[in-house]
Amino acid sequence: MSGAGAGAGAGAGAGAGAAPPGRERARRPGGRTARNRALVLDAVRAQLLEHGYDGLSVDSVAERAGVHRTTVYRRWRDVGGLLADLLDAARDDDWAAPDTGSLTGDLVAVNREVHEALTSTPSLTTALIAASFRSARAASALRDFWEDRYRRCALIVERAVLRGEIPERTDARRLLVAATAPLYHQVVLLRVPTSVQFADQAAHDAARAAVAGVFTGP
Amino acid sequence: MSGAGAGAGAGAGAGAGAAPPGRERARRPGGRTARNRALVLDAVRAQLLEHGYDGLSVDSVAERAGVHRTTVYRRWRDVGGLLADLLDAARDDDWAAPDTGSLTGDLVAVNREVHEALTSTPSLTTALIAASFRSARAASALRDFWEDRYRRCALIVERAVLRGEIPERTDARRLLVAATAPLYHQVVLLRVPTSVQFADQAAHDAARAAVAGVFTGP
Repeated sequence: MSGAGAGAGAGAGAGAGAAPPGRERARRPGGRTARNRALVLDAVRAQLLEHGYDGLSVDSVAERAGVHRTTVYRRWRDVGGLLADLLDAARDDDWAAPDTGSLTGDLVAVNREVHEALTSTPSLTTALIAASFRSARAASALRDFWEDRYRRCALIVERAVLRGEIPERTDARRLLVAATAPLYHQVVLLRVPTSVQFADQAAHDAARAAVAGVFTGP
Repeated sequence: MSGAGAGAGAGAGAGAGAAPPGRERARRPGGRTARNRALVLDAVRAQLLEHGYDGLSVDSVAERAGVHRTTVYRRWRDVGGLLADLLDAARDDDWAAPDTGSLTGDLVAVNREVHEALTSTPSLTTALIAASFRSARAASALRDFWEDRYRRCALIVERAVLRGEIPERTDARRLLVAATAPLYHQVVLLRVPTSVQFADQAAHDAARAAVAGVFTGP
């Protein structure tokens, strides 16, 4: 699941999956069901990257995966089911928020993963975001995925509080959104060329605001 | 153009068009070309709101507008051309950044317009964002539209500097993106229910960060 981990993971404003490509395949538990799932999700990812949402269909995925189409129809039913399972599987990884020793360092590390995921060519994250405008099930699964990533990233804020870098009542979610949202906004919505310096700056700005106590209070 | 003004305008992180529905029609300059453009763009807007991108075609728009399809093909060529013209026309309005007398007040006013545009049902802004993932011309026109809105909003920052609310070297674009991006992120990408209080809070947070000098320096 490293692909979706890297793509959707960083899409989480959280981070790339830690796994190198192929790891998932190597540790796949035996059993035809698990093997088929891995083959099918690999095919979903590949189709999405190569042809976008319009290239996705149960038939094209089944053919690419080498899995019988009735199996795919039975288990995933439609394109929404395939996309949702890709994102659900991506949540099963062991991604952990970076721990660099400082709030700024951690936020910069997160934003660099997001930047990499959003600006790589082709970008699975961007393809999944685009798909979320076409499929309600994909949208819902993407939301769950992101919420999971923001939850894992809350550790960054807890550690910064423990180190005395930022006030105790800092709202983790507000701080994390402040750090990551400008990057998504710039790349995904405003669609302007976005350097890694922009990603760093958004992280620095959010950290400075947190130090100034902006994310406490109502 | 009030519809796209309201939709795409607020989509700009900038604001709803000031015009009430129907104003554009009332002041349309004469001439068949201008009348046809108005009819066609009204039809694009209506189709997009009712049926989304998939409901848009030159033929469906021509029929709805009551304009001959060869006229529409000749002038707009395809769906991308229609969407781009809708957004270009929306830039021709007289929308101006709010001027409430304080930085916080101005940013809250902007974010309330954005919130309204993104959460109204149906939302033309959201439909245009979704369309921008399907059509490169729509994406490019949406980017131009938003850049125009951010340019107009720079006045908010200039006035705050003149009033001595924030440091002179405050980067207007960074501050404006910090104020608006969390709102877009939450509604458009994270897709979680978003109250007007959330919009207000993002504006307050950005204003406080600006006062603390976060958006000066590199």
